[in-house]
Amino acid sequence: MGHNIDSSLFNIRTDLAIEEIKDEDKNTVVEKKQNGNINITSVVIDQKNKDLYNKKEGTYITIEFTDATDYNNKKEIEKVLEEELKLMLNKLKISDEAKCLIIGLGNEKSTPDSLGPLSINKIIVTNHFFELGINVEEGFRSTAAFNPGVMGQTGLETSDIVFAVVKEVKPDFLIVIDALKASSIDRINKTVQITDAGINPGSGIGNNRKEISKDVLNIPVIAIGIPTVVDTVTIVNDTFNYITNNFSYMKNNIDEPKEKLKIIRTNIDKNNVNEEDKKQLFGLIGNLNDEEIKSLINEVLIPLGYNMIVTPKEIDFEIEKLSDIIGNGINNALHKKVTEL
Amino acid sequence: MGHNIDSSLFNIRTDLAIEEIKDEDKNTVVEKKQNGNINITSVVIDQKNKDLYNKKEGTYITIEFTDATDYNNKKEIEKVLEEELKLMLNKLKISDEAKCLIIGLGNEKSTPDSLGPLSINKIIVTNHFFELGINVEEGFRSTAAFNPGVMGQTGLETSDIVFAVVKEVKPDFLIVIDALKASSIDRINKTVQITDAGINPGSGIGNNRKEISKDVLNIPVIAIGIPTVVDTVTIVNDTFNYITNNFSYMKNNIDEPKEKLKIIRTNIDKNNVNEEDKKQLFGLIGNLNDEEIKSLINEVLIPLGYNMIVTPKEIDFEIEKLSDIIGNGINNALHKKVTEL
Amino acid sequence: MGHNIDSSLFNIRTDLAIEEIKDEDKNTVVEKKQNGNINITSVVIDQKNKDLYNKKEGTYITIEFTDATDYNNKKEIEKVLEEELKLMLNKLKISDEAKCLIIGLGNEKSTPDSLGPLSINKIIVTNHFFELGINVEEGFRSTAAFNPGVMGQTGLETSDIVFAVVKEVKPDFLIVIDALKASSIDRINKTVQITDAGINPGSGIGNNRKEISKDVLNIPVIAIGIPTVVDTVTIVNDTFNYITNNFSYMKNNIDEPKEKLKIIRTNIDKNNVNEEDKKQLFGLIGNLNDEEIKSLINEVLIPLGYNMIVTPKEIDFEIEKLSDIIGNGINNALHKKVTEL
Amino acid sequence: MGHNIDSSLFNIRTDLAIEEIKDEDKNTVVEKKQNGNINITSVVIDQKNKDLYNKKEGTYITIEFTDATDYNNKKEIEKVLEEELKLMLNKLKISDEAKCLIIGLGNEKSTPDSLGPLSINKIIVTNHFFELGINVEEGFRSTAAFNPGVMGQTGLETSDIVFAVVKEVKPDFLIVIDALKASSIDRINKTVQITDAGINPGSGIGNNRKEISKDVLNIPVIAIGIPTVVDTVTIVNDTFNYITNNFSYMKNNIDEPKEKLKIIRTNIDKNNVNEEDKKQLFGLIGNLNDEEIKSLINEVLIPLGYNMIVTPKEIDFEIEKLSDIIGNGINNALHKKVTEL
Repeated sequence: MGHNIDSSLFNIRTDLAIEEIKDEDKNTVVEKKQNGNINITSVVIDQKNKDLYNKKEGTYITIEFTDATDYNNKKEIEKVLEEELKLMLNKLKISDEAKCLIIGLGNEKSTPDSLGPLSINKIIVTNHFFELGINVEEGFRSTAAFNPGVMGQTGLETSDIVFAVVKEVKPDFLIVIDALKASSIDRINKTVQITDAGINPGSGIGNNRKEISKDVLNIPVIAIGIPTVVDTVTIVNDTFNYITNNFSYMKNNIDEPKEKLKIIRTNIDKNNVNEEDKKQLFGLIGNLNDEEIKSLINEVLIPLGYNMIVTPKEIDFEIEKLSDIIGNGINNALHKKVTEL
Repeated sequence: MGHNIDSSLFNIRTDLAIEEIKDEDKNTVVEKKQNGNINITSVVIDQKNKDLYNKKEGTYITIEFTDATDYNNKKEIEKVLEEELKLMLNKLKISDEAKCLIIGLGNEKSTPDSLGPLSINKIIVTNHFFELGINVEEGFRSTAAFNPGVMGQTGLETSDIVFAVVKEVKPDFLIVIDALKASSIDRINKTVQITDAGINPGSGIGNNRKEISKDVLNIPVIAIGIPTVVDTVTIVNDTFNYITNNFSYMKNNIDEPKEKLKIIRTNIDKNNVNEEDKKQLFGLIGNLNDEEIKSLINEVLIPLGYNMIVTPKEIDFEIEKLSDIIGNGINNALHKKVTEL
Repeated sequence: MGHNIDSSLFNIRTDLAIEEIKDEDKNTVVEKKQNGNINITSVVIDQKNKDLYNKKEGTYITIEFTDATDYNNKKEIEKVLEEELKLMLNKLKISDEAKCLIIGLGNEKSTPDSLGPLSINKIIVTNHFFELGINVEEGFRSTAAFNPGVMGQTGLETSDIVFAVVKEVKPDFLIVIDALKASSIDRINKTVQITDAGINPGSGIGNNRKEISKDVLNIPVIAIGIPTVVDTVTIVNDTFNYITNNFSYMKNNIDEPKEKLKIIRTNIDKNNVNEEDKKQLFGLIGNLNDEEIKSLINEVLIPLGYNMIVTPKEIDFEIEKLSDIIGNGINNALHKKVTEL
Repeated sequence: MGHNIDSSLFNIRTDLAIEEIKDEDKNTVVEKKQNGNINITSVVIDQKNKDLYNKKEGTYITIEFTDATDYNNKKEIEKVLEEELKLMLNKLKISDEAKCLIIGLGNEKSTPDSLGPLSINKIIVTNHFFELGINVEEGFRSTAAFNPGVMGQTGLETSDIVFAVVKEVKPDFLIVIDALKASSIDRINKTVQITDAGINPGSGIGNNRKEISKDVLNIPVIAIGIPTVVDTVTIVNDTFNYITNNFSYMKNNIDEPKEKLKIIRTNIDKNNVNEEDKKQLFGLIGNLNDEEIKSLINEVLIPLGYNMIVTPKEIDFEIEKLSDIIGNGINNALHKKVTEL
């Protein structure tokens, strides 16, 4: 998340590609997989649809899961992340010997923004052994890892530090880890996004020159992110849609109470609401679409100072497990020989 | 906040008395003071109105302020807290020599729940000097401080530990510090409540025997709390009311654009909405009152697992300053000789 | 280690029984076992020899190992600790259903003194499930865990808090974890001592009433300790003896350079020096025995303020692993069903 | 301190210039000042004597103080540090507008090595305001701050990261903060060294190319260091000398017991021992000079793995205050307008 000179600008940003893609976009969604309770969706944004989604060209892999603080879930998510990272390395034609620099964006002192630095703490680094001519067991590639800090602490543009270190270290590819902002309450701490489209630390600042991407650096950049925060506007809008869907469902199933609870959970898709029901339920407000409602709420809350960015109160425990997942997933994907300790 | 076997139970709880009191309750509000940007409200809940407000009998002092991470604000809040604590000590007829035990409720490992333990870290303790017969400078009373931990870490009811330690230490009075849950988004990290009515760690658990109060312990108990979290339901309901008020205002002031921004900020009182406007704006939903809307949202969100308890993303920096305020405020109120370091 | 009103008193204390016992005390040493690189020694101090060793009656099990930050070593130490704890439980006739309270002595904010609190963080607590009537899987006993803090933070005698909580919780037995002071540089972070003789938090304070033991509490007390600090006096005296032994060895093996390095490592036993060599080497000082040398150094260094208690510079990494070992060892010994996560 | 592939190499290093200089070197010591309990010594090492002292050319200012955890001491040390830094800036002809980059060497996760990163946390950064064209109050210069991490965490040579960031940021001068190794037990956590001679992160590695200095970077480099660790060899050798001096003193003053304690404290100068007394006291060992004794101890302890680098057990509390002193001292020296918060 990095710095935020003007935190209201945060609203412009939508970090997760999957939140922009509708299911009907058949030609965008490349693949959907399921692994136990984990859903994996790959979408490709290309020249033709990048403006439509306001996203950069690239492949976006989304891994959706439930509670990461559960031991078994955690192990499964780690395995899926490893596999998807390996597929991405293959797709990008990155060899087993290619040297990797891993960057942890964000502020270790701010729990919801500490995903990058905490993940870096778990990374196995080997580059110094290669540099010093120390014998490294086969099965390990050269890896280095680095936390550039945030502008509020360093007084420096995060991207500038990253560019400087890349120029010095000359890695063959980059992995960048960051905490993201979700535009949906059901994804917080429950989604990993992997993309080769690059990343923009402290985005919304309106400075495209500063993105960390292949376009800028001429080496592949894999960005790994987990949404850890959401804003008030999103919470309210999501709730409107959940209430409407609940209302629609109740109307249609009023006579079948038995199945109510079971179905309601799977049936709720807040991206697919009945517009008529919404109008009846929410009056004038119900006439507005999602974007209009968000704008309206923004207009009301921002002058009051209440469009907060929030994080679940359990964030300390969740970020601990999520950074473990990312650290282990990366270690296992990068080195053949790693047996996780 | 302590433990939460069933976090949905959290919703029953309303930690701040001021949120229950309407301005028209003339006989309840004892006093309103202002000190720079800081508002201080004292309310007394007695035999007659305790059921009305679902609050225990006692005096509730609410100190409302703005950004506590601002250096000057922080110094002023500290001073006000010190003064109000001294008034409370006077009111409870607690002498300068009375021995004090200070308890920090909550979980130091969970940022939004760490207010109690972090405040305890700042407390000056002197009891061991008195016990060991070491000469203590005049102007200091005997103080001890203690973190009982949370049930999820200890396997023990927090109140049981507190009772056991009180029985052993035999203080003349107790100060208990806890992070609270707000039922209003505009109070998070911006309100201190002081009360002599006692406190219920992990309340909502439905166990009145376990409250920490004068009734149970036979010594005065002063509880100091700051709301650090809020639930999704509250965020949505508050927003409904802000939108309605904004709508009402716009309708009435459509021709005076010049004054719009200035007035809108002060005019907004989400506890005082125009019911007709609300109906027009929100359709069927607009017909419901606050409690009904909250129940409805709860009914929809809880089965989905989305009635989260959230905290602002800046919580780490804010809790640091807030625990400083409480620690310094207590030190200065309890000891005549303290010049804050 | 707890508080230290007068840190010079620290010197009186010798926390490890094994450091007092000489090999010739055949009837004291009950058993010596070896498990890979790990040595396990059991000694029993009884009525007859307790004054000789200035130790309380009881069984003292010492587990000696090398680098605990090595993954494989760590796993083996954990296993040995589990086994020795189970033997101790058997010996003390503690049943599988007996309720256990685990206490972590020391100061979490002071790295070398944080062994107790850090270990407590790893403990699986179940007592609240038993208390609340929540169904607990078979294979788990009732456990609670608790950090009493240190006197400098609480203003309270640590033992008083422990006694109060024991009285309230009524466990069938106690486990107490503490960081110890070594009287030998080769044991720091490389030895676990388990004893049923109880423990004296902040000992040296000369207050026998305050010990935590079966004598005082009428339930079995198992103390688990690891030496994490050593004083300057010990470092100097140990070095005198190492130098002397090295000198003795060199004199005797001057003509066999080939075997020098190999033998010197195993041959060095600083508790067994040649007194003649010591005199030749160290002049007047060499005439003194260990206790006299220590007294002399103390007399010189204490007025200068240089009899420091020190800890290795890697303490943060070592204490992390050591607390893991203790937490896992206890969990596995107390619950049949635990498969470590 | 940075990385330590081979920690035995640590011994070669002597971080404090003052420990190399004898009082008789009249032409080296430029100035001695006293400020309350604080002693300030300036020495200049030039072309002629740099080999003698095995130190780089430059000015070395040593500030010697007592307990930094005392509030009043701390304030005074901060003031002296500020003054000496200002003198150094003047001497180096660094203007009030010159842009400064501050680097914190060391490992934040390792308490005795965390001085650099912890100090950086206290630094006021302003560079981003200058870069973004945000109006900065007069009295502030442009400052940026940065933690490069340690090789064991990053896989990168610390100096390489520093060089890369310097090249990107283009500061007018550099301040580098690091924890040092003392070669005297009485300096640990009680001395600040300021020098314009540069610094060598993880020195002893035998790689002169990697030093951070004006020679390499072509801008002034001010290094600020505090010794936080000492090795066993130094402790033992210092103790030998203290014992000898104590012995010499006792011999000469055997009949004046009254003045004993008072004089002994000031009279002890471990760098100035009576060689005859040393021989009598320590036999063969007493015939060796300091360097020979250190070599001997090294030879004995290193094969045993007992030449530990140690830190006082209170390191957590001391490093907290020391990093405060450095942070505040730098802020006050760099910006005219800072009034410390």
